Amino acid sequence: MKVLVLGADGYLGWPTCMYLSARGHEIVGIDNYFRRNVLKELDSEPLAPVPDLHQRASLWEEHSGKKIHVHIDDITDYDFLLGVFRDFVPDAVVHYAEQPSAPYSMLNHDAAAFTVRNNLIGTLNITYAVREVNPACHIVKLGTMGEYGTPNIDIEEGWLEIEHKGRKDKFLFPRQASSLYHTTKIQDTDLLWFYVRTWGLRVTDLMQGPVYGVSTDESAADPRLVPIFNYDEIFGTVVNRFVVQAVAGYPLTVYGKGGQTRGYLNLRDTLQCVGLALESPSGKGELRVFNQVTETFSVNDLAERVQRVGRELGHNVEIREIENPRVEKEDHYYNPAYTGLLDLGLEPHYMTDDVVRELIQFVEGYKDRINRDAIFRGVKWR
Amino acid sequence: MKVLVLGADGYLGWPTCMYLSARGHEIVGIDNYFRRNVLKELDSEPLAPVPDLHQRASLWEEHSGKKIHVHIDDITDYDFLLGVFRDFVPDAVVHYAEQPSAPYSMLNHDAAAFTVRNNLIGTLNITYAVREVNPACHIVKLGTMGEYGTPNIDIEEGWLEIEHKGRKDKFLFPRQASSLYHTTKIQDTDLLWFYVRTWGLRVTDLMQGPVYGVSTDESAADPRLVPIFNYDEIFGTVVNRFVVQAVAGYPLTVYGKGGQTRGYLNLRDTLQCVGLALESPSGKGELRVFNQVTETFSVNDLAERVQRVGRELGHNVEIREIENPRVEKEDHYYNPAYTGLLDLGLEPHYMTDDVVRELIQFVEGYKDRINRDAIFRGVKWR
Repeated sequence: MKVLVLGADGYLGWPTCMYLSARGHEIVGIDNYFRRNVLKELDSEPLAPVPDLHQRASLWEEHSGKKIHVHIDDITDYDFLLGVFRDFVPDAVVHYAEQPSAPYSMLNHDAAAFTVRNNLIGTLNITYAVREVNPACHIVKLGTMGEYGTPNIDIEEGWLEIEHKGRKDKFLFPRQASSLYHTTKIQDTDLLWFYVRTWGLRVTDLMQGPVYGVSTDESAADPRLVPIFNYDEIFGTVVNRFVVQAVAGYPLTVYGKGGQTRGYLNLRDTLQCVGLALESPSGKGELRVFNQVTETFSVNDLAERVQRVGRELGHNVEIREIENPRVEKEDHYYNPAYTGLLDLGLEPHYMTDDVVRELIQFVEGYKDRINRDAIFRGVKWR
Repeated sequence: MKVLVLGADGYLGWPTCMYLSARGHEIVGIDNYFRRNVLKELDSEPLAPVPDLHQRASLWEEHSGKKIHVHIDDITDYDFLLGVFRDFVPDAVVHYAEQPSAPYSMLNHDAAAFTVRNNLIGTLNITYAVREVNPACHIVKLGTMGEYGTPNIDIEEGWLEIEHKGRKDKFLFPRQASSLYHTTKIQDTDLLWFYVRTWGLRVTDLMQGPVYGVSTDESAADPRLVPIFNYDEIFGTVVNRFVVQAVAGYPLTVYGKGGQTRGYLNLRDTLQCVGLALESPSGKGELRVFNQVTETFSVNDLAERVQRVGRELGHNVEIREIENPRVEKEDHYYNPAYTGLLDLGLEPHYMTDDVVRELIQFVEGYKDRINRDAIFRGVKWR
């Protein structure tokens, strides 16, 4: 299958390129280096050194004998994107090319406007390029569980049948997110659902929870093939951040009461899920939605687990409850459904102590590179 | 009250400026002439000649003795908008400054991208300027009934309490629109609701149906004060279009079966509704939603009424069912609630035969200016 991976340099993009390439798919990747550029501005580097995308593609070819073609350019430039579509004529697109940081989206006006423009125009451009070049092309869009927020009812997989005053209809599950970034993903869903209905596009929306981990089968060949692993407040995801904090002797940054509960998944499972979605595409005019998580934890659960395993490994791990810079419920009902991907064949890698231990040991190898100043900046929501 | 009117040159913007000015409010208006510029590109002019916005403000001052300050500039330029906010420090903003045409939004990629950028970045800029300059400022946002689409359940005013598996929560009423333009209004709602929750902004969302009419008390003083009245496929609203078609001897363009039912209101009632919303602002952290319509009709109802009254006035009015260029249901359930604005004191001007007659007579005065080629272009949704 010919797969176009957008956001190919990111934490998930690069491992996805390798995973799909290893399985015999023909891969073209695009990235605008947004994350790398912001990391430089913020004086915050990935934990492990990461060669640039061209170099990673060359390394991958050395180790696997397989080519991944990459473009460093911007999908918000429609002429560029359309050119790639015309040359490659993809069977599927995996769309990670969004400004993915909640704190970044709350920094200031310029960052907010960038987030809206990048995410919405990028998604719009994809729908137009698909329609123009190959309307059967399957769009696999990374959504986020954050779109649902924390409603007081069970979260279903994307859709909800509503009975009201004796009549029924089926709707997108109600969404209300807790950052501008997450709100732009709701807006993406609005956009894709409109064009699915109107043009008969094929879309899978993977409503993903926070991902943790760094190892994949493909990166085992060479440490320079690991994904960009961020632990800073802007781009780091919570489990990865806690592990780095544990190794650095920095008290784990629990926001507020720590009762915030979310669904999580291992990086290896993100790859499986995307692969499974690609293997059984959505039908014409279908917006298929999966909740892409494998288990739920509160922030306190995560902090306690990292503390316990960290202490077993000899680290001095404290937990510090700090004033929550975000606006979110710290104690709430949370019961999402997530059976769709299991039904497709997902075999989850759960967050065992072994998994946490392996991650801590990875971080120990780069302990000297940890920049304590990048760990907490306190980007305020208000 | 100091009121900033965005989109001040438009079909609703200019009459709103005069209406509020006549009631003693201090008005600053902004417009980027988007509509005027597109009309030139499309070789389609408003039915009645319309002086530019500076000239209209001067005319209004001659007749009323009241000043309306206007800026021809673009609210997607944040520095410009913030400057106006800092100089004027408005108590309220009336936000009409959106690309308002469903067919325009479906023309091609560039028009779609413009619609997304203009509508989303404009709305984002307003929220930031309000927060920066006067967080108590009341944002009165023109939404559209089209955000709801045509669900198979009763449409409530903005919100819906949902009971699911024995638990309850209240959500924005589910929205799924039938054009990209209408979809951007859903996205605006997502954006405003997020910042209302996070920053405690005060917002009223007026979910307006298609507006018809041209006369207002304020424009009676001088024919050059009438609003921009469009009858072309891009900017004309359906009743106004049918009336022009009736006078031009052009068969009324009913799309498909004509069973499409919507809520409508008289231009005079738009002004009342906006005035009522301004007089009783939303609370801090409240997104208040009103369905701004006064009665519902199917397209066939409207065509038959215009035909009947037109024939009484001696016009040769035929109705032609043409292939629907849009993707929409032509036969559907439709039962919206619209009591909120009545409770605030709205006194509706219903679509009586007299009202249709008066509108036909207005159009007769400009019969020679009707450009038949602009009436139907058939912008296709697919």
